[in-house]
This record gives sequence, C-alpha cells and structure tokens, in this order.
Amino acid sequence: MKPVRLGLLGCGTVGGGVVRLLKTHAEYLARSVGAPLELARILVRDGDRDRVVPEVDRALLTGDAEVLLGDHSIDIIVEVMGGVDPARQYVERAMDSGRSVVTANKALLAKHGPDLVARAVQRRVDLAFEASVGGGIPVIRVLREALVGDSVVKLEGIVNGTCNYVLTRMRNEGLGFDEVVRDAQAKGYAEADPSLDVDGHDAAHKLVVLAMMAFGARIDGQTVPTEGIRGIDPIDHRFAERFGFVIKHLAIGRRTPSGLELRVHPALVREDTALANVNGVLNAIAIEGRALGPCLLSGRGAGDMPTAVSVVGDICDVARAKLSGVSGLATSGMSLRAGPVAPIDDVRGRYYLRFEVHDRPGVLARLAGGLGDAGVSIEQMVQEGGGGSTGVPVQIVMLTHEAVERDIRRALAEIKSSGVAARDAMLLRIQE
Amino acid sequence: MKPVRLGLLGCGTVGGGVVRLLKTHAEYLARSVGAPLELARILVRDGDRDRVVPEVDRALLTGDAEVLLGDHSIDIIVEVMGGVDPARQYVERAMDSGRSVVTANKALLAKHGPDLVARAVQRRVDLAFEASVGGGIPVIRVLREALVGDSVVKLEGIVNGTCNYVLTRMRNEGLGFDEVVRDAQAKGYAEADPSLDVDGHDAAHKLVVLAMMAFGARIDGQTVPTEGIRGIDPIDHRFAERFGFVIKHLAIGRRTPSGLELRVHPALVREDTALANVNGVLNAIAIEGRALGPCLLSGRGAGDMPTAVSVVGDICDVARAKLSGVSGLATSGMSLRAGPVAPIDDVRGRYYLRFEVHDRPGVLARLAGGLGDAGVSIEQMVQEGGGGSTGVPVQIVMLTHEAVERDIRRALAEIKSSGVAARDAMLLRIQE
Repeated sequence: MKPVRLGLLGCGTVGGGVVRLLKTHAEYLARSVGAPLELARILVRDGDRDRVVPEVDRALLTGDAEVLLGDHSIDIIVEVMGGVDPARQYVERAMDSGRSVVTANKALLAKHGPDLVARAVQRRVDLAFEASVGGGIPVIRVLREALVGDSVVKLEGIVNGTCNYVLTRMRNEGLGFDEVVRDAQAKGYAEADPSLDVDGHDAAHKLVVLAMMAFGARIDGQTVPTEGIRGIDPIDHRFAERFGFVIKHLAIGRRTPSGLELRVHPALVREDTALANVNGVLNAIAIEGRALGPCLLSGRGAGDMPTAVSVVGDICDVARAKLSGVSGLATSGMSLRAGPVAPIDDVRGRYYLRFEVHDRPGVLARLAGGLGDAGVSIEQMVQEGGGGSTGVPVQIVMLTHEAVERDIRRALAEIKSSGVAARDAMLLRIQE
Repeated sequence: MKPVRLGLLGCGTVGGGVVRLLKTHAEYLARSVGAPLELARILVRDGDRDRVVPEVDRALLTGDAEVLLGDHSIDIIVEVMGGVDPARQYVERAMDSGRSVVTANKALLAKHGPDLVARAVQRRVDLAFEASVGGGIPVIRVLREALVGDSVVKLEGIVNGTCNYVLTRMRNEGLGFDEVVRDAQAKGYAEADPSLDVDGHDAAHKLVVLAMMAFGARIDGQTVPTEGIRGIDPIDHRFAERFGFVIKHLAIGRRTPSGLELRVHPALVREDTALANVNGVLNAIAIEGRALGPCLLSGRGAGDMPTAVSVVGDICDVARAKLSGVSGLATSGMSLRAGPVAPIDDVRGRYYLRFEVHDRPGVLARLAGGLGDAGVSIEQMVQEGGGGSTGVPVQIVMLTHEAVERDIRRALAEIKSSGVAARDAMLLRIQE
C-alpha cells in the first residue's frame, strides 16, 4: 500500500525519539494504520546535523524549511522543534496547504491553541497535540475520545514536574526551597532560571490547553490566577502532615454556576488519595466526569521518550484519518467559547492559614477575632513554639471551615493592619 | 448527513445509560462523529419492557433478536445484554453480516476475546470493548492507541472493586473478612455468592483481556495462577502497615525472558505509591511502557454510567470508521499469539511470610533454618505475642530478600513437616 509520508520539523531529543520509535515498531504501526509510515524529510538547524540519532537517513535532512513545507508529497507535518516562532508559521502554512499537523509544542498551544484549532476546522485538517500537555500521559486523547459522551465537571492536575519534584523532596527530607532547587538544577530537573516552572506559569499554560479540551473554553493564559511554590516553608509541610495533608502544586479547572473557575496554586491534598502520592517528577491529572465520575491519569509529564510515544500515537490517528479521506474530525467536534475566568475572590473552600506572631498575650484573640469578624470560622488550630523566651516568633496554624476567599482576604488584611503578626500570613487552599 | 444507525442489544442499566448519553449529547456527538447517531432498534426481554428509561422511544423496542439482526439498515450493533450466550451468537452474526460491534461484555471477552478479534479481522469490521474491562477507565483505548508506538513491559491492576472495597475496609476499620463481605452484600457491593470476585476469578478474566491488548497474548484464563483474598486476616493488614505496605488484590502481567508472567493474587504495595491509595470500589491499572515509562489510570471499574460513557466513546470510534469506509483498523493491528503462562514457581521477588507458632524454645531457629536451607534470606523479622502463658500462639512475620517462589515453597513445606507451626504459613508477595 502507498505509504503515508511524514515531514519532521526538528530532530532534537523528542524528534530523535520519534524517529527511533517509527523504526522499531514500523511493522506494527503499518498494520495498525493500514499503510506504512514513511519519513520523507527532516528539517534540522545546521548545528544539529551532527547530533541526529544514528537511525536517521542523512539524505532526508534539510536545513531549509521551504524544501520540506513545499514538498506536496508529504501528507503530515510533525512539529517537534519547540518555541512559538517560527513553529507557528510553519504549522499554519502546513494547514493552509491542506496537511494535517501533529505537534508537541506546549508554548505554541497555550498561546495560539484556539486559533490553531479554528484554523484546522476551517481547513478541514487534523491538529493533534497530545504531547503538548503531560508528556506521556494520554490526557488529551481521553478528554477528546473517551469522554466524548460525557461532560467534565472538574479537573485537578499536577502538571509541572519541577514543582512536584521540589515539593516532594522538601517534604521527604525537610529541606528548604532554595536548597532543593539548586540540587534540581544540578540534576537537570530545573532550568537555570526556574521561574517559568516554580512560579506556576508553565502549569498555567497547560491549564489553558486542558481547559480547551475539557470545557471547550477559549482562555487567555494571562487571566488565570497563578501562584507558585516559592513562599512555601519546610514548616508548612510539617504542619500539613500533622493535619493529614500533603502540599501539591495544582492546576484546577471547575465549572461553577457563576462561570469557569481556573487557577494554579499550591494546595493541601489529603494524604490518603492517589493524587497526593504522585511524587517526584511524575505528573497526574484527575478528571471528574458528570457520568463517568472520577478518573485519574498519571505518568511522566516530560522526557524525550514518553513525549515521543505520545507523538507517535497522534501520528497514527492522523494517518488513519488521512487514509480514510475524512481528516479534521478530531478538531471539528470542538467549538470553543471565550468567557471570563471566575475571580479568585469567589473561590469557596477550606483554608490553611499560618501566622508567625510575637508571643504576647491577646495575640490569639486578635487572630480569631479578625477571622470571626469576616465571618470565617476556625475548625482546627495548632500552635508551635512560644512559652519560652520572649521575642522568638510563634507559629499558629488554623484550618478554617468552608469560607469564601474574599472573606479570608478581608480577615488577613485586618489582621495585618492590627500589627500582631510578624509577617504576612501564609495562605494555602485545601483541595477536597 | 445520513445518520449512523445503531442496534442496541439489551436495555438494562448500562443500556439505559447509553440511551441517555446519546440523547443528552446528541449534537456534540454528531459534530464529533461527522453524522448523527440514530438508535434504530432495541432488543429487550419481555419482562424488561416496562423498565426501560423514559428517554427510550418505545416504538423501537422489540423482543425478537431476528428483527434487529436482520435489519440491514443498522450499521453498528451495541451489545449491552451481558452473559456469554446468546450474546456470543448475536455478536458473531452481526460481524458475519459485515456490521461492526461495540460490547461491554467482560465474560464474553474473557472467554472468546481472541476468537472474536480474529473474526473481526477476517470480516474487516471493528470490535470495540473498552467497557468490558475497568468500566469507566479508558485502559483499552490507551493500550491500543496511545501506546501504539511502544511496547508494554508490565502491568499491575486493581481490577476488582469488591476485593478493593473489602481490603480497604478491613485495613481502615480493623474488621474481619466475613464481616465486611456481609456488609458489602447488604450495600450491593458484593454478590450473594461473592466467590467470582473474592476468589480472584473476575480479576483473572479481566487480566486475560488486558494481556490480549498489552502483550498480544492469547491466553486461556484457566491457566492464570489465581488467588483471592479469603485467607487474609486483619492481623496481616496491621503487619503490612508496620512495614510500610498496604495489601491490594492485583492482576499482574509481565514480559520476562522466560515468557509471559500472568498472575492474580493479593500483594503488599508500598504505602506511598498512587496504586496503594486507590481505595474503596475504585479500580486502577498501572502500565509500564518501554519508552513511555510508568502510566497509571484510575477510576470507577463498574457502575452503569461510567460503563455507558465507555460504550459511547467506542460507538463514536466505530461510527467514524464506518463513515470513512475503513472499518476494522482497531482490531487489524492485533496479531495474537498463544503461549504458555510462566509457572508461578518461577516468580522472583520479595515475600511476606506470617507464621503462627507455639511459643517454645528453638522455634525461631527452626523457621530461620528452614528458610536458610532453601537459600532464602530474611531481611526483616517481627514477633508479636508470646513471652507470657504457654499455649498461646505467637505471630512471627518475616520479610525475605529477593527469592524464587519455588525455594519459598520448599522452605514452607519443610517448616510445615517439622511441626513447629500451629497452621499453614500466610504467604503474600511484595510488589515493588
């Protein structure tokens, strides 16, 4: 049978993995697709020519994007070069010329996902992007296909491996944030500038893509309330443990009567849940379907080979569609609606509040009073330190009953202005 | 566009859920499939006529299978009647007449899966059976599609909700097996005759289907070493916890150099893993891909609506294939090979051994000697009871270093014949 011809944009570590898998599993893939998959051309930067994996036929390499994009014998464009530009122009050009696209590009999807999906629908081509979120976790496929007959009520994800690695080691070894980040950088689990990860922006990018799939939402990532993990102290892990929780950095999406709630922040998760026990660089996404109920997917959120597995899965889907002559179904079902993200002030839940206070008479009354005045009631309280030399700060941790974040903020502002706390309170949301 | 016509075999709880989802999500499903899905006919038993959900158009009901199977305007047969016969005959007839089939029937798949797959390949039709394993967990889809470019090295699943419910409550509440089973029966979580579940046979059925998808293996379920959870004492939960483990009932499949290892039994799982924290009636399947690494899927393993979501996902896949004119790809990639299951005696791992002994001098030496003579070395040991009145039995638990099951069995036989133990030792495998 006539092969399906692939053009590979980029041949770095993920691209190399794709080449390797296509070669190793060629026979099985051909059977499963209904035709052999043939690598037609590979775009590389000049400097990368010498680094391509030995499986690559060097005659396929080109440094000129025009050669690849202009070759109309190529059926599917596989974009594994990364970065927003020129990847975006290449992907758009491929779709405009009627070719389906597989991409592993998270930044591209987070920034231009809805526009690219709209373009794919318009051009009646497929746009597949499993590898852009959660590396080897098949969450896009599950949201698109397995849940096609259901609606997603809620999702919660550990979607940043760096954050999860740092929090896991802080908790297990009692280490501070800076120390673990330095070590993670040395091990290659964190970038030289870790802000994209530890400040939550990467997780917010992924949430934008997940929200598109789960809720049909067209979201500007800038509007998603986003907090990172810099402020978390080893002492917070200890207190959380004392109450039966683990601190995880979560991306959360939820339909509420007042609109879509999307947010990224650290949260307390009950220690006896599967999500709380997804550790180290592993990622996980918990989905709640109206009919399906709970569903958790976990695995490697990054890494060359897991990502390459997702890319190859997408290539097969798109190739089958191409062969059957009905491309574009994967995206045609999607109708994205723009809408506001619910303000974080409207979030309702339980809260963990840690106050560092001067050990003076009446302090606890002031804290409790501040919360009570705002209508926030306290479920549990624990104090650590104090009773000894004056001047040493005391840690007071309170778990609240369910409250609205607006009221919590009001109480914290009131407590701050009263001067009883040595520093700003630590606020962590409890994710039930 | 011309609708895709569905014939529903059975309209009990799962069938009713399917009807409801098809109705609720009609517009979205039509967009995603590329044509509307139309319920053409529904086969019901006479007694069920009055119990169908109100969404059903009663004019579609028939009590005569011939009316439905003989209607060649029907494109896809959806089998949700359960039981091996006559479901098997209906499914075979549907395929023989060129219609693709979606089924939720675990018993049918476990018993005749490979033959039905071979028939689907021969007739060039699709046979989709996501709902036959793990209810609402999309494991079949992930094995078939997401992992198409990888090979599965190992899988471990909590695939029986009754076992998991019983073990979870025994552990959390310190209750005995019989007591929890009685309560589970009262709540509808266990059958009046619970053997199919608690003796591991249901899990073995599911493992046969999973092994077909994960390893391309054609397995006779009778040859899978299968143990249930009847022998587990609350004391085993306590000891497991003391060593940092949780007892779970697992279905395990693993490629080994000496062939495919398949087995079903309770096992000790480290308490800080996601799998150990999948509790109650929830199910989970952990897959290890050569390139993908670890991947865990968890959710409701049974229940009408989760199962219906899986059925509808399958209907959409099969309908798309039908519309594109290339049915049969889902199964055509599969080439099943029959092969022996590796003997349980060859299993290599660590073991938990609990001996109930008479508190007499020299007993520990006899136990240690029996194990040592068989080449089994002990990593940890703990004794409970004893030191007081003679005649009261003492519990001695040993965790071994890695050993081969054959040697463990030999040591246990030797210890038994020596007469030091009050009863047969409790053996539990440790799943790393």
